[in-house]
Amino acid sequence: MHYIGVDLGGTNIAAGIVGDKGKILFKSSVKTPQRASPEEVASEIAELCFETVARAGLQIEDIAALGAGIPGSVRPNEGVVERCVNLGFMEVPFAALLEERIGKPVKLVNDANAAALAEYASGAGCGCESMVMLTLGTGIGGGIVINNRLYSGINHAAGEIGHFVILHGGEECKCGRRGCFEAYASATALKRLTREKMRQYPHSLMWNIAGSLELAGARTAFEAAEQNDKAAAEVIRNYTEYLASGITSIVNIFQPEILCIGGGLSGEGEKLLRPVREILDREDFARNNKKRTRLVTAMLGNDAGIIGAALLPLYDN
Amino acid sequence: MHYIGVDLGGTNIAAGIVGDKGKILFKSSVKTPQRASPEEVASEIAELCFETVARAGLQIEDIAALGAGIPGSVRPNEGVVERCVNLGFMEVPFAALLEERIGKPVKLVNDANAAALAEYASGAGCGCESMVMLTLGTGIGGGIVINNRLYSGINHAAGEIGHFVILHGGEECKCGRRGCFEAYASATALKRLTREKMRQYPHSLMWNIAGSLELAGARTAFEAAEQNDKAAAEVIRNYTEYLASGITSIVNIFQPEILCIGGGLSGEGEKLLRPVREILDREDFARNNKKRTRLVTAMLGNDAGIIGAALLPLYDN
Repeated sequence: MHYIGVDLGGTNIAAGIVGDKGKILFKSSVKTPQRASPEEVASEIAELCFETVARAGLQIEDIAALGAGIPGSVRPNEGVVERCVNLGFMEVPFAALLEERIGKPVKLVNDANAAALAEYASGAGCGCESMVMLTLGTGIGGGIVINNRLYSGINHAAGEIGHFVILHGGEECKCGRRGCFEAYASATALKRLTREKMRQYPHSLMWNIAGSLELAGARTAFEAAEQNDKAAAEVIRNYTEYLASGITSIVNIFQPEILCIGGGLSGEGEKLLRPVREILDREDFARNNKKRTRLVTAMLGNDAGIIGAALLPLYDN
Repeated sequence: MHYIGVDLGGTNIAAGIVGDKGKILFKSSVKTPQRASPEEVASEIAELCFETVARAGLQIEDIAALGAGIPGSVRPNEGVVERCVNLGFMEVPFAALLEERIGKPVKLVNDANAAALAEYASGAGCGCESMVMLTLGTGIGGGIVINNRLYSGINHAAGEIGHFVILHGGEECKCGRRGCFEAYASATALKRLTREKMRQYPHSLMWNIAGSLELAGARTAFEAAEQNDKAAAEVIRNYTEYLASGITSIVNIFQPEILCIGGGLSGEGEKLLRPVREILDREDFARNNKKRTRLVTAMLGNDAGIIGAALLPLYDN
């Protein structure tokens, strides 16, 4: 049997046909209609799905169900999008709107949770009993999978792992708190640390690599540090300390079998993880334990959203 | 059927006969033998259990199983105490030692996890789907119960909720990290904050209440603040801010149905919780959600250790 996974973003909608082992057979995408009603967005998704099924050489009868990852808060049991700022949805019975148009059962899930489920089911956490996923991007997304189930708390809002405070009274965070993990360890935070250091060191290689302060990105410091730029190495060291602090805290709380790091920065692989692991080996409360959390990078990249949404009907949540 | 719960502490061993609804029928305790071998400690526990059964007017045949809460790390599936500093146990097959002596199936559990299970099964979290427990004592103990199961991670060391950093680079913690929640929100931390403030304010009522700096305890500031002492009110305000910061972080990560606060300080009840709730209502990521975490104090006091250990065989862990 096959499943459709939909990754509904503020910019693009991606849909993929996924087998029950989590492999994508075929995928395609369209621009997200802007300022559109929930009905219009649902119609756009339905059209994309029918087209994707056809282009995969399948019939709609080959599809068992559809899952949709939503960049906001959902009530999966009711099929309701509670709040999605990017799309302007509030309390929208979106699963029903999709079911009407597609004629298949539809499940909704928060998009960060979808990515975590995908890595657990067929990516970096495949076969493990417990996994926490952190996605380092504009913010920090999170997902928790325990014993074959997404854990999402009493209100399906659990896993906001970007929003625990690591520095009381520190940098302002979008969420209204100060000193959140996200404000120190997201890709956005790394950009901020990079630009601060560039201002201090006008002769740093980071200027040549980025071209200008405005163009400096999350990978600028990694590239410059490769070429032995001292200021860049300091940026990476500071960033790594914050990242490792948060990761160690999450390990002390969950001791998951796998802690999976996703998002663009995870492309740095061991360059990113090695120094984090050194701190974790020193500070993990269970550092002397036989079994310890394995720190790994995500494997599925941008496909995780589609795969996790598609597999949702196979997981009892 | 009845169960025996044993709470093995560094100072006392308590044993209780518990019904399957979590009520204690009868309990008694003895001093923990000091510098004793695991075999000697097991014999002491067995003797206490037989005596407790007899004094409860029961026969050993009325007992289905025994659970023992251990102040250290355990591997429940193997019945092994991995490490228990207070008793000097390392890799001790303690369940087998007890089974030999008592002739009943024995399960081991970490003591903080036992307390959490007790509150979940028959205390403040009774009937809820997910609960995180924090015990504010010398340190901060934790326990996580999700869908009728203790969550203890890949190595049964999860729930070390005292050891996530809330102030990067802050106070040294026993665990080797700096700035841990425990270093700011345990009863020990409140004592430290109290004494620091007493030194600053030699005319504070806290001096009269405590008698001396050395005698100042975790409740000194609460008592003085009741009587409108400004320095004491400041201590409580600072402490509450740290406590609320950590609690809000835990809520953002877990969104549990119940967050249960135990330990001696929880006796302050709403005096402790009201200001924490104000901060939580402002900073909870799900503050606009229909369903939110309920913050409550523990109900079972010191009995939680016995009850949780006794009920362990009834929970699939």
